[in-house]
This record gives sequence, C-alpha cells and structure tokens, in this order.
Amino acid sequence: MSFDSKAAVAALQRYEGKSYAVMHAGSVLSTDGVTAAPEDSWEGRARTMGYLSELEYSLSTEPAFLSLLKELDEHSDELDQLTKRQVKVLLRETERISRIPFEEYTRYSVLVSEASSLWIKAKKSDDFALFAPYLEKLVAANRRMASLWNPDEQPYNVLLDRYEEGLTMSMCDRFFNTVREGIVPLIRKVGEHQYSRYPFESREYPIPLQDEFSHALMDMEGIDPRRCTLSTTEHPFTSGVNNRDVRITTHYHDHDFIASLFSVLHEGGHALYELGGDDRYNYTCLYGGASMSIHESQSRFYENLIGRSKAFSAPLLRTARNFFPEQLADVTEEMFYRAINRVQPSLIRTEADELTYSLHVMIRYEIEKQLIDGSLQVKDIPQVWNNLYEAYLGIRPTDNKTGCLQDSHWSGGMFGYFPSYALGSAYGAQMLDRMEKEVPQLWDKVGKGDLSPVTEWLHEKIHQFSALFTPQEILDQVCGGFDPSYYIRYLTEKYSELYILN
Amino acid sequence: MSFDSKAAVAALQRYEGKSYAVMHAGSVLSTDGVTAAPEDSWEGRARTMGYLSELEYSLSTEPAFLSLLKELDEHSDELDQLTKRQVKVLLRETERISRIPFEEYTRYSVLVSEASSLWIKAKKSDDFALFAPYLEKLVAANRRMASLWNPDEQPYNVLLDRYEEGLTMSMCDRFFNTVREGIVPLIRKVGEHQYSRYPFESREYPIPLQDEFSHALMDMEGIDPRRCTLSTTEHPFTSGVNNRDVRITTHYHDHDFIASLFSVLHEGGHALYELGGDDRYNYTCLYGGASMSIHESQSRFYENLIGRSKAFSAPLLRTARNFFPEQLADVTEEMFYRAINRVQPSLIRTEADELTYSLHVMIRYEIEKQLIDGSLQVKDIPQVWNNLYEAYLGIRPTDNKTGCLQDSHWSGGMFGYFPSYALGSAYGAQMLDRMEKEVPQLWDKVGKGDLSPVTEWLHEKIHQFSALFTPQEILDQVCGGFDPSYYIRYLTEKYSELYILN
Repeated sequence: MSFDSKAAVAALQRYEGKSYAVMHAGSVLSTDGVTAAPEDSWEGRARTMGYLSELEYSLSTEPAFLSLLKELDEHSDELDQLTKRQVKVLLRETERISRIPFEEYTRYSVLVSEASSLWIKAKKSDDFALFAPYLEKLVAANRRMASLWNPDEQPYNVLLDRYEEGLTMSMCDRFFNTVREGIVPLIRKVGEHQYSRYPFESREYPIPLQDEFSHALMDMEGIDPRRCTLSTTEHPFTSGVNNRDVRITTHYHDHDFIASLFSVLHEGGHALYELGGDDRYNYTCLYGGASMSIHESQSRFYENLIGRSKAFSAPLLRTARNFFPEQLADVTEEMFYRAINRVQPSLIRTEADELTYSLHVMIRYEIEKQLIDGSLQVKDIPQVWNNLYEAYLGIRPTDNKTGCLQDSHWSGGMFGYFPSYALGSAYGAQMLDRMEKEVPQLWDKVGKGDLSPVTEWLHEKIHQFSALFTPQEILDQVCGGFDPSYYIRYLTEKYSELYILN
Repeated sequence: MSFDSKAAVAALQRYEGKSYAVMHAGSVLSTDGVTAAPEDSWEGRARTMGYLSELEYSLSTEPAFLSLLKELDEHSDELDQLTKRQVKVLLRETERISRIPFEEYTRYSVLVSEASSLWIKAKKSDDFALFAPYLEKLVAANRRMASLWNPDEQPYNVLLDRYEEGLTMSMCDRFFNTVREGIVPLIRKVGEHQYSRYPFESREYPIPLQDEFSHALMDMEGIDPRRCTLSTTEHPFTSGVNNRDVRITTHYHDHDFIASLFSVLHEGGHALYELGGDDRYNYTCLYGGASMSIHESQSRFYENLIGRSKAFSAPLLRTARNFFPEQLADVTEEMFYRAINRVQPSLIRTEADELTYSLHVMIRYEIEKQLIDGSLQVKDIPQVWNNLYEAYLGIRPTDNKTGCLQDSHWSGGMFGYFPSYALGSAYGAQMLDRMEKEVPQLWDKVGKGDLSPVTEWLHEKIHQFSALFTPQEILDQVCGGFDPSYYIRYLTEKYSELYILN
C-alpha cells in the first residue's frame, strides 16, 4: 500500500491531541497542588497523577502509534519541516519510554512520589539520613534507565542529553572550566569591595501593592494578560500548555520588594517564550521551547541581562516609585542599580546573585557526575558539597537543609538537569552581544522602559520557533555557535565597573 | 469457573480508580477554568475536556468492565453493603452511557460546549434569538437520549431520575402544587408589609476583611481548612473529589457583606457533606453525596434554616462585628435578623430570598416539562417565562438576560436538575423538625454560636453515608418519608412572625 501522507499526518495529530490532554491535565493538577489545593489533598492527587503517567506510557508505547511514527520517518522527505521535526522528537521520546518495562516505569513513578514527600520532611528536619536511602534508589534507577536508553553511552551523558539534546560531559566540563577560571577570582576580588545595605532595602512593601507592581512589570515585558496569569507560590515557576494558557507565580516578602521583582521578570521571560511560539506548535510535542537551557537563556535575559542592567534601572525605579513613593523617596538610580547587583556569596542557589549563580550550579554538576558514575557514594554527599562551597564560594554550610538538601531536583529524579541553568545564562550573554549589534539604539530604548525591541528580536530569532530547532541549531543560527567567553567577558566588565576593580 | 469475590472486588476498585482519576482531572480543569485560567485559554481546555469525556465513555463501556459488573450483580448476596450499592450505581451509569452511540456522545459534548459559549454571548447581549437554535438542539438531544435510556418511560421522568433517583413528574407536581398554594398567598401578604433598607446594608465592607470573615464562618461551621479551601469566582460553587480535597468559592461585593456571608454558609454546607463521607467511599462512585436534592438540603440547612434563624443572628452579628466594628456599630440583633430575612420578589433566582426562592424553581420546572414533552416551543419561552414571573411573583422581566437567559443550566444540557433546588429546601425543613426533637437545647447552643450539634447530627444521619443510600431511603430513615407540609409550615410561621401577619 502506498504512503498516504495526509492521512498519516492526521493520525499523528490525533495522537498528539491525546498526549496534549494528558500533559494538560497533569500540568493543571500539579499547579493546583501548589496553589489552591488543600494541604491534606495529596493522596488523591498522587492517584490521579499515577493514572495519567500510566496513560502517557500506554499512549507512547501503543504499537499502532510506533509503526505510524516509523512509517512517517521512512517517508520523511515527503513531510514538511514541522512534521519532520515532530516525528523526530516523538521517536526520541517514545523509544526512550518503550525501553523501560511498564512495571519498572510505574515502580519508578511511585519511588519519585515517595522520595519527594520524604525530601520535604528531611529538609524540614535537616535529616539527610532520612532521605539518603531514597536518593540511593533514585541514583541506581537513573543509572539503570540511562543504560536502557542507550547502552553504548556513559550514563550521565544519556541523562544530560535527555534535558538538552546533544549535551555531553565533555561539553559541560569545558564550559564549567571556563566559568571556574573566569569567575572564582572575580568573586574573590569583589568580596574585598563589599557595599553595605541601604535603608530602603528593608522597608515595608505591602503585598497588595507588590502585586500591582508585578502586573506593571508583566505589562512592561509585553505579556498579554488574557493569555498569562500570575499567582503566588512558595517557589516561583512558569507553566504553559499552549500559547494561550501560561501561568507564572511569584513569592512576596513583606520587607523586600526586590526578590519578587526579579522573580516576576524571570518567570515573565519564560512566559514570553511559551506565549511566543507560533500557533501551529500548539497541541504538539513541539510546543514549549527548544530545551531547558534555551528557556533559561530567555528567563535570565529579562531577569539579569535586561532587568539588572544600568539602562533599565532608571525605568524600573520609576515604575516602582508609582507603587512605593515613600519607601523609595531617598533612593537614587545609582543606589538602586547597586542594590540590585550586590554580590554576596551565599548558600542558597535560588537566592544567589548573577555573578555567583553559576558556581552553585557547577557544584551540583560535579556531584551528579560522580554519583552517576559511581565514584561518589550518597552518604558522602554532605561532606563533598560543603567542601565545594568552601572552595568556590568561600562559605561553608553548617547544616544540610541549607546545603545538599536545598533543591527538589534529585528527589524528583532529575539528574542532568542542573547544567541548563548555567548554560542558559551563558547563552543569554552571547545573544545579548548579538542583539546589541543588530538592534539600533537598544539601550536608549531600554533606558526609556521600552522593552519591545528586546522581545521582538527574541521573538523573531527564538520564541516563534518553539522546538522546531535543536538548542545547538538555535545557537548556530542566532550566534554562530556557542562560545562561553562572551559570558565571562560580560560578567567581568559589569562587575569590574560596579566594584571599581580596575 | 466459580466466582472469586475478592478478585472481582479488586478489579472493580481498579476501574473505580481510573474513573476517579478522569473525574478528578475534569474537576480540577473546570475549577481552574473559572479561577486561575487566563481568559483566552478556553480552546485548549475544551480539547482536554473532550478527551476526558471520551476516556470516560470508553472506561464505562469497556466490555470487560460491563461483564465484571454483571458478574458482581449476579452474586450480589455475596457482597458487602458498600459493594452491592457500588455495583448498582455503576450499572445504572454504565447502562445509561452504553445506550448512547459513541459518535452521538461526542457530538453531544461538542454541542454542549458550543452552546455554553453561545449562551454567555447571548446573555451578555440580551439576544435570545442567538441562543434559541442551540437550545432547540439541546432539547431534542435530551429527548432522544431519554428515549434511549428508557424507551418505556416519559422522557422528562427519565431526565428527572437522572439527577434524583426515583423522582417523577407526578411527585414534582404534587410538591410544587403544595408550594404554590402555601407560598404564593404568603408572599402577597408579606409584600404589603415591606421594611425599608437599613443604612448598614450599603456601607463599605473591604474585601480583604470580608475574606477573613469568610474563614471565620467556615471555622464556625467546623470546616477543616487542611481539607477545604476558599477562593473567589463570579458564581459561587462547591467542588469535591474526595473527603480531603474540597473547594468552595464565593463572590464579594464592596458594599454588601451579606451576599457573600450566605454564599459561604451555603457552600460550606455542601462542603461539610463532601468532607463528612466515610473514607471508604473515597475513589468510588459513592463519594460525594446521595443526590443533588440531598446536597441542597445540606447547603440550605446552613444558609437558611440555621444561618437565617433568629438564634444564630446573635453570634453571626457578633462575629461580623469582629471584622466590621464601625460599619455595624448601630445595628441591633433585631435589625440584623430582619435585614437577612427581607422578602422581596425579584427577577434573579440566585439572589432570591428564602421565601420566594422555590417559586423561581417552579417556573423553570413548568417550562422544562413542557419543552421536553413538546407542548412548548423554544421560541415561546420568553413570553411564557415572563407571564409566570408575573403570575407567581408579581413582577415581570423587561429583558431576557434577567429573564429566561439568566441560568447556565440549559446551555449545559441540564434538564430535570432544577427541582433539586426546591426539594432540597423542603427536605431540610423536615430534617430540622426532626433535629429539634432529637437534639437537646439545639437552639440554645446555636444561639451561642456553637454549630457542632447541628453538624454532628447531620453527619451521623446523612453525611457519613455519602451515596450508600438513595435519596428516598435517606428521607425514610431520617424523617420517616418526605412530607412537604413541614416546609410550608416552617415558612409560614417564620415569615408570619417576622412580618406580623397574624
């Protein structure tokens, strides 16, 4: 029988529609779990999530679907660019899932769900020993899954590639070496020139006003409020299911409006990527962006490269004054710029400043690599963690809840994910360099509070394509390939000037 | 092969687990749709809801499931009471769904979804003609489905039975005749003794304080905040998925704290029923209550029979004063009691007072009955609607948006649902009579703000059993059978005294 490309593509869309629905339901359930859901409601949610994950497995491993994908792949020269890429991404995903037996797949889901609950308890009570047996099981399970996914590759490479197509340990090693050599000495020098805190940084900023300010920030970023809403959670995040349904969250502090300000700009950057994809990627596996690193490049673009720039400080302070005229009456642009760029080596990754952030990530990368290759035992993590913080950041955690128990990632079975955070920052710095060359009067416009040239450029180069291209293809197209030296140069120039190191 | 009851029950639980997950996902999606979701996100949600409804259909009509149910039913004397009832309810449901061909089932889902959107537009623009063609299709579809469900019964009886097992037109006719004869003359007399509004009824009540007040009310009702949360929506509702995951909503008005107060008490009554079921009903078709009428009897119990009682006025005013001391400084208990019981025939059902409420429902019942038996044409609804309002309530709508377009039910294909609202009020009045006889010092305790004897009695008699019994069985067990005269007597006594009609 000859290949009927129209019928095959229609059948593919039907499968994609089902996957979309399962993903959408899961997304709403997990957002609900951290926003509106009652505290004691976790059990019913875990049951439903378990069923959705079984559905996902059976949809992905349905023989008719797999043969449809293979048939489409064999006729890929008869397909348009979108479908071709869609088939490739789906083959990658379904092959991965199919290689894990169903029993093992569901056992792993249960393990992750138990480990996540245990981690919360262990963190609260600062009890690493409580979490350690689960972490051992998670490491073993990830090592085993990696070997099932690709027995010919080193397991940690397989895990890296899962979150960032094409990423390997040797690429990460090269990148983090550059970061270490460039940033560690810079942080040391900055530490000798520390500023003290200004009075305005600890005044009272009523939360209802902060909420209005958040909406003003979203408006400055050009986020369409009919397609993206804001709510509050313990840990800020973005979740999008199609380009008309995106949510961001923030966390307010009574006596600090700066923390939420940059959360909103950061999550707003993610949201713009999720909102900016072309309609045709909706309800397909290509919706949502090229990778976690590219996503982080966009969020950190708005948070740091724009949000913490000298030019943007002026309109940012002006906007903040509309909501907090008294609290900010004695603040100059210079003070504000310095306050939002204060460098202070600290223990918590999510609260780290722009300069020290990558080192937090590097520490996790080094530990993960050794955990997965077996050269580090779970029980030794606290010691190694603390030593690395002392070596790179000059401070040593005195407990595990502000040390190796701080992040949720490992409890969720996510090994190989952390590098995305640091790579995103580096990609962003390189994109900015290109943007400065291509957008006339970029900083003049930003200095007037007009971010439209920024968003337009990112939309044209990146957002509109969703996952049509691989992360590497995007970097090639936009910047002519990845080069971390832009990142080091950007940080060195900015922080040398700020802390008068020259 | 002999019947293995343990294995069969385990298989049944697995099916129930899947149904639970599909129901839970749908519930969270629809709650999300009216709370946190962005305005433009409806399309993606409609797709996912469509898929969930297909899943529901295929789960309910899976041959292995149907034969399992039949097998269990044949061995029902070997089953415990819970499983026996579960099988009966599931057989009823699955037989109903199985009789509608899949194509027709999905076509109907699409029709409902389109009609719901169209209704919103039609209501906004007061354009009945826009909605009429959809309403015609919905009436025809419901008539056809009723004939598929039970070809030997009159279609509207089949629809009534869907929402209230065992309910028929002749029962409704008898009930509404009693209501009409008892209440219409009473309303006429009350109308001649109208009170004017007190100044406190239109003062400003800041919404953040109203929100705190709502939580105090929920606390008075004995609602566990770890199992039930409150949020705000245009139209208040309750949704529960298991006894640890219930949500209620309210709607605040700047210059009126009484509307939200009674919404919270009402939805709180629903919530107590959803929260009070025994653990063993969770994740089964028996979770959530016996029927809509029994549910309404519980919500109206807290809203009206307790909430608007003379005894409860005192602690209610005292609690309100904690949040609004200045606004309520000049208010006596007597004024407050009169204000919350003001009778005023009005056009909008959801804003109606306790006395006139049932007449709004009766009007809808009369119209539905004629629509389904074909004696009334859709195009004639506005005229008939307005005539009935004039006849029963003495006021005539001047447009359709405050007339026959006001409720969402018909746009959602719900015909036969309305009578539950009025029946619930009547059931509640009869339950109260029984409670007064069985609970010592009931009103003394309520007068001190202690609602625990109320909730304990309702829990023991009703809540704990969820859907283990039919509505009729519950009324038999609790009150010795339904008798609407209690309701008429309750209203007559209360409003005669309030309006000094004797």
